[in-house]
Amino acid sequence: MFSEILEGIVEGTSGGVGAVLMGYDGIAIEQHFKPCGGVDLHMIAVEYANVLKEIKKTAEILNTGIMQEVSIQTERFQVVIRTLTDEYFVALTLERTGNFGKGRYLLMREAANLKEALA
Amino acid sequence: MFSEILEGIVEGTSGGVGAVLMGYDGIAIEQHFKPCGGVDLHMIAVEYANVLKEIKKTAEILNTGIMQEVSIQTERFQVVIRTLTDEYFVALTLERTGNFGKGRYLLMREAANLKEALA
Repeated sequence: MFSEILEGIVEGTSGGVGAVLMGYDGIAIEQHFKPCGGVDLHMIAVEYANVLKEIKKTAEILNTGIMQEVSIQTERFQVVIRTLTDEYFVALTLERTGNFGKGRYLLMREAANLKEALA
Repeated sequence: MFSEILEGIVEGTSGGVGAVLMGYDGIAIEQHFKPCGGVDLHMIAVEYANVLKEIKKTAEILNTGIMQEVSIQTERFQVVIRTLTDEYFVALTLERTGNFGKGRYLLMREAANLKEALA
């Protein structure tokens, strides 16, 4: 179930290289990765789990409402992260030149299905 | 100089509420804010400076290249942050329904001018 949704997100996004359904503790429930030279995409998600925890806390402190989406662009990759529940999020990694808008849209569209499957 | 650029970004973005040019130490060089009920936008930028430092470090550890842009959506706001130099970044806060794409574009376009003015 999770696996097909993640695969659909990655394959449906031009430049998509991997997606992972993960807890804020950095433990992945499911992932779908294309081979990608020299970078451990799972490790990227684990590292960002920590950052997300910080952002989540910050949003609560600032009273700006629940964190819903975070995206990060570096010289080599784009990462789009969507929160699902208090414990889980889904992260999509794209190449620098990948279709950011499409990836963002697919994550938003599939969030409801992932939440349902998690419940 | 900084002030006009920041004002241009905020006024040019539908739903834009404020922009700040800030160091990773949380000290603002310049800012332009519209009045916004009940939320201290300067405080938002200060808090996110800490988060950015974490993301910057993470990108370096992961060897995914220099961090260029980070965006955060919460229930009430969108924040788009663009790195300028090793010490400074610019952050734009938008209403939840604001034009994210336009804000992102203006930040990208003005980044070169801000960098030049910083040098």
